[in-house]
Amino acid sequence: MKKVMNDPQNIVQEMLLGMEASAPGFLKKLNGFDVIVNKDLKEERVTLISGGGSGHEPAHGGYVGKGMLDAAVAGPVFTSPGPDQILEGIKAIDKSKGVLIIIKNYSGDVMNFQMAVEMAEMEGINTDFVIVNDDVAVGESSQRRGIAGTVFVHKIAGARAITGASLKEVKETAQKAINNVRSKGIALDPCILPHNGQPSFQISSDKMEIGLGIHGEPGIKQTEVLTAREIAEDLVISLKEDLGLETGEKIAVMVNGLGATPLMELQVLFNEVAMLCQNSGIKIIKTYIGNYMTSLNMAGLSLTFLRTDQDLADLLNAPVCTLSFR
Amino acid sequence: MKKVMNDPQNIVQEMLLGMEASAPGFLKKLNGFDVIVNKDLKEERVTLISGGGSGHEPAHGGYVGKGMLDAAVAGPVFTSPGPDQILEGIKAIDKSKGVLIIIKNYSGDVMNFQMAVEMAEMEGINTDFVIVNDDVAVGESSQRRGIAGTVFVHKIAGARAITGASLKEVKETAQKAINNVRSKGIALDPCILPHNGQPSFQISSDKMEIGLGIHGEPGIKQTEVLTAREIAEDLVISLKEDLGLETGEKIAVMVNGLGATPLMELQVLFNEVAMLCQNSGIKIIKTYIGNYMTSLNMAGLSLTFLRTDQDLADLLNAPVCTLSFR
Repeated sequence: MKKVMNDPQNIVQEMLLGMEASAPGFLKKLNGFDVIVNKDLKEERVTLISGGGSGHEPAHGGYVGKGMLDAAVAGPVFTSPGPDQILEGIKAIDKSKGVLIIIKNYSGDVMNFQMAVEMAEMEGINTDFVIVNDDVAVGESSQRRGIAGTVFVHKIAGARAITGASLKEVKETAQKAINNVRSKGIALDPCILPHNGQPSFQISSDKMEIGLGIHGEPGIKQTEVLTAREIAEDLVISLKEDLGLETGEKIAVMVNGLGATPLMELQVLFNEVAMLCQNSGIKIIKTYIGNYMTSLNMAGLSLTFLRTDQDLADLLNAPVCTLSFR
Repeated sequence: MKKVMNDPQNIVQEMLLGMEASAPGFLKKLNGFDVIVNKDLKEERVTLISGGGSGHEPAHGGYVGKGMLDAAVAGPVFTSPGPDQILEGIKAIDKSKGVLIIIKNYSGDVMNFQMAVEMAEMEGINTDFVIVNDDVAVGESSQRRGIAGTVFVHKIAGARAITGASLKEVKETAQKAINNVRSKGIALDPCILPHNGQPSFQISSDKMEIGLGIHGEPGIKQTEVLTAREIAEDLVISLKEDLGLETGEKIAVMVNGLGATPLMELQVLFNEVAMLCQNSGIKIIKTYIGNYMTSLNMAGLSLTFLRTDQDLADLLNAPVCTLSFR
């Protein structure tokens, strides 16, 4: 298998140590736990934690820092972190003003993060949580997965938290972002898992998958490889319809690479998205193009629309200091 | 072939239009030319231009903006831009204080950029140039390729230029950065070229290449796939020896992904690099981990060391506003 690694058993720990070493000024790995925290956490305020299986870097450690997350818990590759790890993260950032937990909607994550919430409450820590389910490719919203739109939720909730808002207010802001964010992805080729060298799904050399999840969960359909224009049309129509976007509304856009997609291709795709939005009278107020929520070395991308009012736009634009979001 | 694109003939233009649309506040594509310029260029000062073949994104358009490049010229994929394109970029940013051209050391780039310099001089524009040759994998320094270390040269020269320094001073600063920067790369798998769907080089499924260039030029040797620790040792020793780094010296480090390498692997590699530097008494003052100078979807990475004094450190840390460097 071709991976830059040592023992696959240690890949997550070594990644976190590398992350800590790259930003010694503001990041710290909790000793004995796979948790990255903002070490510069001085204010008495609501704090934020997220996380999930590893393999989605820079999610979530890359979003820890002033104005965004205060801690990120990293499970094994594509596997939810255990409640004990999450609890340790919650305890490390608790400032007695409440801790908001941002969970991506996967059954393992929901179960383990909610268990950690209960454990934290038993230790007297005031907590609450939100569940991100932005992936329109999966039918009912209760079953929808959390994918790249989660990054906008981190940013917006984090910007609210540093204003000194209450736990209830920060949760309401996070939920408002969730209510206004939708994503949909496509994949050209699977990723290779570090522990067994196997591809995350099977696909022939002339096909692509629409609606695939970030762990290789099945998509809506397989099709021949579409052009950038056709892909953009499919994704934009899905997001617009699901959000009920109308002429004159404003959005932030993320074109997210899944790990092995050249930036050139993401920019070509965005060029189509920008034209489609212009033709529909939808105004793009801010654009993010790059690898934000990956799937190891999967080839493909997702498109995220966040409907913004002035409040959400201001929170998105507020100053932030993390490794991977600005 | 699996690429998110429309017609491969238009991929560079569509990429540049997407880049412009993603940053309408400060980037502009020159009409009719494959050149991205900083549209917010008001000061009368020395300006900077770089570029080369496309396929290395975010190089070079991602480095255009206040405090770094003023223009980037994008040739066809892996092919030097023509002198007319380069000349147009030079003319667009000329503020009568001189234009510095930063060239990566490839014969096509050197020929075409120097020809553009001559054409600009004939039009009365004061220009000068530097050539970046940071790749220690190729023997004599005059033949050494310019790779990821070029990004540090852009940043440092750009930070000097906005202080109002003269063309001679900006060139001297760029040359000082070049004299103190070294890089070396490894590749696990080739990239796929958009115009013909062919891999950029051949390699078997159990081998890796050491010292490969960013266009798939042959490396120093093929070997079995090494561990992250072994790769780090090879790269660190090469860079240290070539720079003549001694205990107590300070460096900035870049771990650069070639396009399809998960961030996880780059961070694992950096963890090893950080330990090796610590053991040698070399102090890392700043770290950059990510995709800075890619080769489409090549799997692999390069390591860059920049030896810093207070002057270079201050220039590296000076404020900057670009899409892809901060």
